[in-house]
Amino acid sequence: MSLSSVLGHIKDNREGFLRDFRTLLRQPSISAQGKGLDECSKIVKKLMENAGIKTRILPEKGGNPVVYGEVRSKQGSSKTLLIYGHYDVQPPEPLEKWDSGPFEAAIHGKKIVGRGAADSKNNVTSCVKAAESFLKALNDVPLNLKFIFEGEEEIGSPHLPSFIEENKERLKADSVVCYDGDFDETGRAKISLGVKGLLYVELYCRKAKEDLHSSYAPIVENPAWRLVWALSTIKDPDGKIKVKGWYDEVEPFTPQQSRLLKKIPFHGENFLREFGTKTFLNAKNSREALQHYLTEPTATICGFKTGYQGPGSKTVLPGSAMLKMDFRLVYDQNPRKQLQRLKDHLHSQGFDDIKVKAFGFLEPSRTSPSAPIAKAAEKAARLAYGTSAVVYPRMAASGPDYLFTKRLGLDSIWTGSGPPSAYSHAHAPNEYTTTDHFIAGTKYIASIIDSYARIG
Amino acid sequence: MSLSSVLGHIKDNREGFLRDFRTLLRQPSISAQGKGLDECSKIVKKLMENAGIKTRILPEKGGNPVVYGEVRSKQGSSKTLLIYGHYDVQPPEPLEKWDSGPFEAAIHGKKIVGRGAADSKNNVTSCVKAAESFLKALNDVPLNLKFIFEGEEEIGSPHLPSFIEENKERLKADSVVCYDGDFDETGRAKISLGVKGLLYVELYCRKAKEDLHSSYAPIVENPAWRLVWALSTIKDPDGKIKVKGWYDEVEPFTPQQSRLLKKIPFHGENFLREFGTKTFLNAKNSREALQHYLTEPTATICGFKTGYQGPGSKTVLPGSAMLKMDFRLVYDQNPRKQLQRLKDHLHSQGFDDIKVKAFGFLEPSRTSPSAPIAKAAEKAARLAYGTSAVVYPRMAASGPDYLFTKRLGLDSIWTGSGPPSAYSHAHAPNEYTTTDHFIAGTKYIASIIDSYARIG
Repeated sequence: MSLSSVLGHIKDNREGFLRDFRTLLRQPSISAQGKGLDECSKIVKKLMENAGIKTRILPEKGGNPVVYGEVRSKQGSSKTLLIYGHYDVQPPEPLEKWDSGPFEAAIHGKKIVGRGAADSKNNVTSCVKAAESFLKALNDVPLNLKFIFEGEEEIGSPHLPSFIEENKERLKADSVVCYDGDFDETGRAKISLGVKGLLYVELYCRKAKEDLHSSYAPIVENPAWRLVWALSTIKDPDGKIKVKGWYDEVEPFTPQQSRLLKKIPFHGENFLREFGTKTFLNAKNSREALQHYLTEPTATICGFKTGYQGPGSKTVLPGSAMLKMDFRLVYDQNPRKQLQRLKDHLHSQGFDDIKVKAFGFLEPSRTSPSAPIAKAAEKAARLAYGTSAVVYPRMAASGPDYLFTKRLGLDSIWTGSGPPSAYSHAHAPNEYTTTDHFIAGTKYIASIIDSYARIG
Repeated sequence: MSLSSVLGHIKDNREGFLRDFRTLLRQPSISAQGKGLDECSKIVKKLMENAGIKTRILPEKGGNPVVYGEVRSKQGSSKTLLIYGHYDVQPPEPLEKWDSGPFEAAIHGKKIVGRGAADSKNNVTSCVKAAESFLKALNDVPLNLKFIFEGEEEIGSPHLPSFIEENKERLKADSVVCYDGDFDETGRAKISLGVKGLLYVELYCRKAKEDLHSSYAPIVENPAWRLVWALSTIKDPDGKIKVKGWYDEVEPFTPQQSRLLKKIPFHGENFLREFGTKTFLNAKNSREALQHYLTEPTATICGFKTGYQGPGSKTVLPGSAMLKMDFRLVYDQNPRKQLQRLKDHLHSQGFDDIKVKAFGFLEPSRTSPSAPIAKAAEKAARLAYGTSAVVYPRMAASGPDYLFTKRLGLDSIWTGSGPPSAYSHAHAPNEYTTTDHFIAGTKYIASIIDSYARIG
């Protein structure tokens, strides 16, 4: 079987592939807001069926549908590759900052702009189109393929753990490719051998039934001040998280991981320019910034809402205040344990008036740099892009990778195609990928399938 | 001249007065948002002209128009009373919490609901209708009346100081009534002999050009954290403001003021119930709460906006964060001096990355309990309501009283009519007054005019 005819098929069908990608982009699928998930799962299913993948929509108890597909190798390969992706997207807000509608799938030159264009409907489409190209060009696939595309990645995959548990048999495989990545900032494919974990919480404090005239400030407690004071006990300006035991389970990089870290090209000044900022936080130089980026647990205020937010002045004492925070966790911190520590901390600091609601528990995860799927992906990157991939010992972002490594016991890599997330506006207004990234990314996942089938 | 025929005129014209009040209510006049001020000033002017008041709209340099009116006593009284009020209102947000439109002036039983119904279009209308009633019933007023109705009270009267300075001659008077008050919580007229001052600021911090994926948290500074850390240096959970020198100019109540404080009836439990809260902040009992309420300087978070505020989770690192705060000041703290102290504080704490924008500078103010206008108002309350007024040595809220006491050198009281602000939802959704309060309040200001004319 020849990969080159598969890659040729991809090249010849560029326009049709792009059309299908944009169809998928136009369907909102905002998991945080419960918008359009069913509709989107059906579009994905249809896309897969048209590709020749045997597809079912599997319900997740209490969650959004998982689109599951299989293609069995006719030549009887005993090897199975499980491909994971997600069809849900981040909320598009703030809407006024988009230059075109977030679900318009507008084309601006080589850019395809829309929520999900880079994270991760481009990658979902590429996976499906790669399988389709094998089947169209060769009438077979070089190994058995299984696909799961979930609809809750952007909210921390809350129902995927039980889904994985219940479908252990169905999901039996040899390795996993989580095709939900972007390019390294130097424009090369990025292969991540692990992810950070995540704990996402909402803190809420209510002191009066509504906003009051601020002259009552001496006698009615201010919920915004309560959250501020609580926050100030959680993290210091030097970045250190002050919750007792927070760092207890942090494992430093292994020597092998540290070697990979040293090999990562990182031009900090490009990041800074793209972000519109001048200096890295608490880092003397780019290398140090990179190290912090990949190794530090974080405590991030993602949103704070209280009182009057309009123009000018309004003298109110807020009745309630709401805070959203995420905590990125590194190997081998556990999100449920950290949640308990956070709650204990608030209690011990006297903040029982603050309610903690948690959504999103992702454990950190890692895969060995010598895993066959890692080696196969490195080879595939050279094939598809003509340059070597950058191998990250861990990515700074999070994903449900632990379900594959810790629950299913498989090697798993995160990779994908698209402009580096620092540039693609992933999770931000004007998210985009380019037509070239999308087509090359389709060739890349096809090559990974081929390389992994051939590897010893 | 007989006051009773004036009060009779008010009683007989109840319906027409209410109609004019509601017309004024329907006109938005949101100073914080610059909405509808010109239109509203014209409605006020017409209302005054129809009442027989010689009226002019006087521009405020860079500000909203002041509606100025005069009625000269035909019998040649040498005494002049200056009546101050404001036609602007607080922003109506959050709109979704109103049971009827904020500018509908809906009638619910005896309630008239709308932004400005209690603060302070009811009082403006009452003042005008009182003068009208004198002129209709007696064809004269018992002393010379001057009216200024400004359009910036709710944003701290930023342009009133220069207006007062430029119109010193025009505004010559013997005493001032600021008719912009409400009732005491026991349902009696309230006369306040002073107000707190106010400093209103917006703190802004920007670290990236837009919200970023929160995985960048280890390397890009979070502006929301910066504001939180800055805030935590400004005030402690015990309520004490930690800015150096903040309390230096605070003068304790005089013995006369303290005596008044002791005489104020205060049923704290009613407040708590109305607020939907259980305990007073940092106070063992109602009396202590009342004392804090009137004597404490405050530092209030009025609004905080950053990042994602929608439902569910969104893992973003905010690009910027904005905070609104007010500081109520007591005699004789100076808002400009305090602003400088706040800026110095932020600088000394290392927060030069936070921009401070100030709007609203009101100095605290006080008038002697033995001032003739205070005595006249006490007498008028007994006349209009049949019960004695509650005299507050100071109100917990703020107003531009210092312009009358400190700049013009006059005695000035704050009083008015309407449900206690704890109940009337002033500055909050569903603000209301009642038809009875409105009509009785018109009789009350007519009685003040009469009593002050007669006082020795």
